Amino acid sequence: MDTRPNLSAIRAAHARIRPFIHRTPVLTCSALDALVGASLFFKCENFQKVGAFKIRGATNAVLSLTDEEASRGVATHSSGNHAAALALAARNRGIAAHVVMPRNAPGIKVDAVRGYGGRITFCEPDQASREAKVADVIRETGASLIHPYDDDRIIAGQGTAALELLEDVPDLDAVLAPVGGGGLLSGTAIAVKSLLPKTRVVGCEPALADDAAASMREGRIVPARPPLTIADGLRTSLSERTYSIIRALVESIAVVEEDEIRAALRLVLERMKIVVEPSAVVPLAVMLNRDLDLKGKRVGIILSGGNVDVGNLPL
Amino acid sequence: MDTRPNLSAIRAAHARIRPFIHRTPVLTCSALDALVGASLFFKCENFQKVGAFKIRGATNAVLSLTDEEASRGVATHSSGNHAAALALAARNRGIAAHVVMPRNAPGIKVDAVRGYGGRITFCEPDQASREAKVADVIRETGASLIHPYDDDRIIAGQGTAALELLEDVPDLDAVLAPVGGGGLLSGTAIAVKSLLPKTRVVGCEPALADDAAASMREGRIVPARPPLTIADGLRTSLSERTYSIIRALVESIAVVEEDEIRAALRLVLERMKIVVEPSAVVPLAVMLNRDLDLKGKRVGIILSGGNVDVGNLPL
Repeated sequence: MDTRPNLSAIRAAHARIRPFIHRTPVLTCSALDALVGASLFFKCENFQKVGAFKIRGATNAVLSLTDEEASRGVATHSSGNHAAALALAARNRGIAAHVVMPRNAPGIKVDAVRGYGGRITFCEPDQASREAKVADVIRETGASLIHPYDDDRIIAGQGTAALELLEDVPDLDAVLAPVGGGGLLSGTAIAVKSLLPKTRVVGCEPALADDAAASMREGRIVPARPPLTIADGLRTSLSERTYSIIRALVESIAVVEEDEIRAALRLVLERMKIVVEPSAVVPLAVMLNRDLDLKGKRVGIILSGGNVDVGNLPL
Repeated sequence: MDTRPNLSAIRAAHARIRPFIHRTPVLTCSALDALVGASLFFKCENFQKVGAFKIRGATNAVLSLTDEEASRGVATHSSGNHAAALALAARNRGIAAHVVMPRNAPGIKVDAVRGYGGRITFCEPDQASREAKVADVIRETGASLIHPYDDDRIIAGQGTAALELLEDVPDLDAVLAPVGGGGLLSGTAIAVKSLLPKTRVVGCEPALADDAAASMREGRIVPARPPLTIADGLRTSLSERTYSIIRALVESIAVVEEDEIRAALRLVLERMKIVVEPSAVVPLAVMLNRDLDLKGKRVGIILSGGNVDVGNLPL
């Protein structure tokens, strides 16, 4: 059986999660259009609940559980936006969310998860300790593991952002999305290619975390390098699941340098007057600095989130 | 003849300027509502052209000139948002804008005015030199002086923001606006009190620039103190014109401290994910820290602008 999420799964996810998410606006900016020489349509997931698209997948996963499964709660080991999203999605269904976080996680991230009612278990800051601790939590509680991206329900949920974008702007020549673990890019590619087969889908990532580009090039999953990029949402590696979807549906992975990400971040803050996180502007940095042969075209961009330390912006 | 701008003047201004301005959105934020215990409706002039409501008044003033007057251009001595707004408004009519700026004006402000095609004349950084230089420019060119707020056409133009706010949210219990020279507050008060006489209008200003509050208290115009507040748009003094309108129509002037403005700025950036300037959050700081007896009420707030140095946010 092909369990790969398809357009029907994304439509079903959308019907399921709609009461629990914001319908985020699609914004345009003539100053940025002039700079890139194309018409850009920004799907503003920075305005989404928990400040990122992650609530879409997390909510779809939580609502897809049977009552019996749900009663035992959910668990994850992300320390980023997915953890906060899962905590809120679980609270919306009235069930427990167990989140394993490294002892050295920033207080602001711990507070976010706790603020949504997540139950935090701390572990040592290494992969082995993290996985062992999650296994412990699941053994003790019977909670369902909700992986941040290696999960068909998550991918279908993340695809709903592109679904809404195409509802609002049905004639795009290309859609660009950032790629970390590949959940957002996979869902985006499925939605776009199912609805508009000729529309190009391009993944965008930092050169300092160019594992997706390397994976496409080498024809196998190349793990992410140690986390260095300011685009902290894009430091993770593809899974077999997201790799296979991206290889099938995504035209290419474009890569940008850190100073290009910083400049794009400043442009969005100054010109669009909206707060976004560095990961979110990677596609704009691509449009500003790489030639994708999109001059004069209509280009959708998933602005993935807005969770950034505003007192210490990486500009 | 009563030349005081009234609702008809504001409606006429709106019809005149509409093709040249953005219809800015009214945003809400449940997290902020929970913090203040009221329903807040933010009229987002940070998304306005030139990043501030100032384009409304400037455009109305420029479009109100006869062809003969217009042919000789316009002039002003503001160095802030009004100068950039006047330059753009003039360019939209195809006429010259002469802007007198102090020699020590920040490069970013000079660039903004120049970017919109304004013709800059530098002067020494004192009031006498500034006024003398503007008089020179007007004598040489025959340009019309467009004062940033002491002008009925400006006041009527600024009132269009509240007009749009009430079109979108017709049942507000109160409207709060920041007050510097009083152009925005005057226009807001005229629009609100004409359409909804029972709706309360409150001006909001920094304690370090509490000249409007002092003026109301003492029954005469008290000049602004030297510029110290981070709310750099609110450092100017009322004029007789704005003072008389505000005294007639505004219930009170609420005052907040600098740290309250900083905290409100951080909240808007973090929770609403939008970029605003310190002056814009003064009304929110009032809602968070002063008791205006508005618990559970519906409160409109004019978010006046978004021009702030994002690399050096005053948080």
